[in-house]
Amino acid sequence: MSLIDRLDECARFSPEAYRPFNVAGLQVGRIRHEFAERLQAYPDVFVVGDDEVGLFASLREPENRTKAVAGVLEDLRGQSLFVGWRDEHYPVSESYYASPLLTIERAAVPSFGTMGYGVHLNGYVRKNDGLHMWIGKRSMQKQTGPGKLDQMVAGGLPVGIAIWDNLIKECGEEAGMPLQLAGTAIPVGTVSYLTERKEGLRHDVLFNYDIALPGDFKPIPTDGEVDDFYLWPIRDVMQRIRDTDDFKFNAALVIIDFAVRHGVLTPDDPDYIVIAEAIRLGRFSATKVR
Amino acid sequence: MSLIDRLDECARFSPEAYRPFNVAGLQVGRIRHEFAERLQAYPDVFVVGDDEVGLFASLREPENRTKAVAGVLEDLRGQSLFVGWRDEHYPVSESYYASPLLTIERAAVPSFGTMGYGVHLNGYVRKNDGLHMWIGKRSMQKQTGPGKLDQMVAGGLPVGIAIWDNLIKECGEEAGMPLQLAGTAIPVGTVSYLTERKEGLRHDVLFNYDIALPGDFKPIPTDGEVDDFYLWPIRDVMQRIRDTDDFKFNAALVIIDFAVRHGVLTPDDPDYIVIAEAIRLGRFSATKVR
Repeated sequence: MSLIDRLDECARFSPEAYRPFNVAGLQVGRIRHEFAERLQAYPDVFVVGDDEVGLFASLREPENRTKAVAGVLEDLRGQSLFVGWRDEHYPVSESYYASPLLTIERAAVPSFGTMGYGVHLNGYVRKNDGLHMWIGKRSMQKQTGPGKLDQMVAGGLPVGIAIWDNLIKECGEEAGMPLQLAGTAIPVGTVSYLTERKEGLRHDVLFNYDIALPGDFKPIPTDGEVDDFYLWPIRDVMQRIRDTDDFKFNAALVIIDFAVRHGVLTPDDPDYIVIAEAIRLGRFSATKVR
Repeated sequence: MSLIDRLDECARFSPEAYRPFNVAGLQVGRIRHEFAERLQAYPDVFVVGDDEVGLFASLREPENRTKAVAGVLEDLRGQSLFVGWRDEHYPVSESYYASPLLTIERAAVPSFGTMGYGVHLNGYVRKNDGLHMWIGKRSMQKQTGPGKLDQMVAGGLPVGIAIWDNLIKECGEEAGMPLQLAGTAIPVGTVSYLTERKEGLRHDVLFNYDIALPGDFKPIPTDGEVDDFYLWPIRDVMQRIRDTDDFKFNAALVIIDFAVRHGVLTPDDPDYIVIAEAIRLGRFSATKVR
């Protein structure tokens, strides 16, 4: 396997399997034809056409839309369509910065192909023998990627919490990081992907942060989301991403981006340009974020 | 003006004005219809069709192709088609890492729309009051962008010199930087663009480097390419990129990338995602690098 194979895992998408999901005249997602057919059972909420799925015309306000869709999802919940019900709502809109047109249960987001957002933190330590990175091992109880390796701190962005506030909160909850230390994290860009996973279509933008940690800091699993933390030389991390399937697909993407930004990968690598360009778009020019 | 306007300057491209330039069955560039018509005068070198321009079939080896094309360019040189003859050859190939199919005079690259490569170095100083960046003012004698603001060190990558060697050489020539200091530069990724400029179609990939400089280092204009150097707070640099046309178009792109990577721009900016994704592809999904 190569790093490019890992990037390809962030760009598995067959357009012909989907029809657009439109709300208020804007495309906000993509729905599998099979799932669209199930939605035909709810004609007072969904208008299911051959070429698109929309919401029933009378649903004009975000609150009405949210409530109506939630009712359908509650009804479908027993049919094992959704991986890991969260009781956490994600905004549905054309872009992160636009007002939500409605909100939907996080577990259903991949069924509608609407956009998801997250914060991921690269925790690293500069040692005499080079960069080391803190890696978290996800709990076996996690609903997606149980037991996979991940960033030290990572989390989805539900509606109603600011990006920075969510990062600081997750730093405390997932790694027991003191507030003052967490506040030294630096935003370093985004990565995005549009890719088919077991749970459905993942179309996410991740807000990435770096934090340079003192040698004596040790993250502590606090909220049960992470089972253990390891501090590994960055070259070992990269080797493991290349050779194994141990990392969660999007955590691998975030680390490859880190490796480009910190000179772990260099222009001597014949894949350098492809990797450097692909990390932000998951090799997918179709990614639409506004 | 906004940073997005600066990014748009890196994506001015009207596909209908061009036809493909193919060599050995591979598309390696784009030629304006007007220039294609001029090439019709050289039927023993160029095969000019309505839908593509190729090389005459007997030109099978890189050496023959290079020599034949050089002869045509020498003949056209008097017609003021090329901005700034350099006597420096650029490789023509499908990607940076492929063997060149031929090489052509650097000044003619924008007329064929073949790819160009460069190294750009962000020289920065961490002060108590935040990041500062060394900015170079290009000589008024430069053939492209005279008098424009630029990276501290920047240069094209001619055929026959490795990326890292070229960076170190330019550090010495353009800024009088000692070898040992230059060696602390770190590769931090690429930016690329496909955009129409006065000189023709620029389709470049820039290999970017960062260097953290000690407070007592002062770059010295050495080879006449740079008239002066300034050390400015990064926020002033960003303001100047937003408000003025003082920076060379690609230097602005490189600095916007720096600003994303170093947390100068943050997710609070409603343009953040668009900027973070655009910097590596100049908003242009058509960019083909392999």
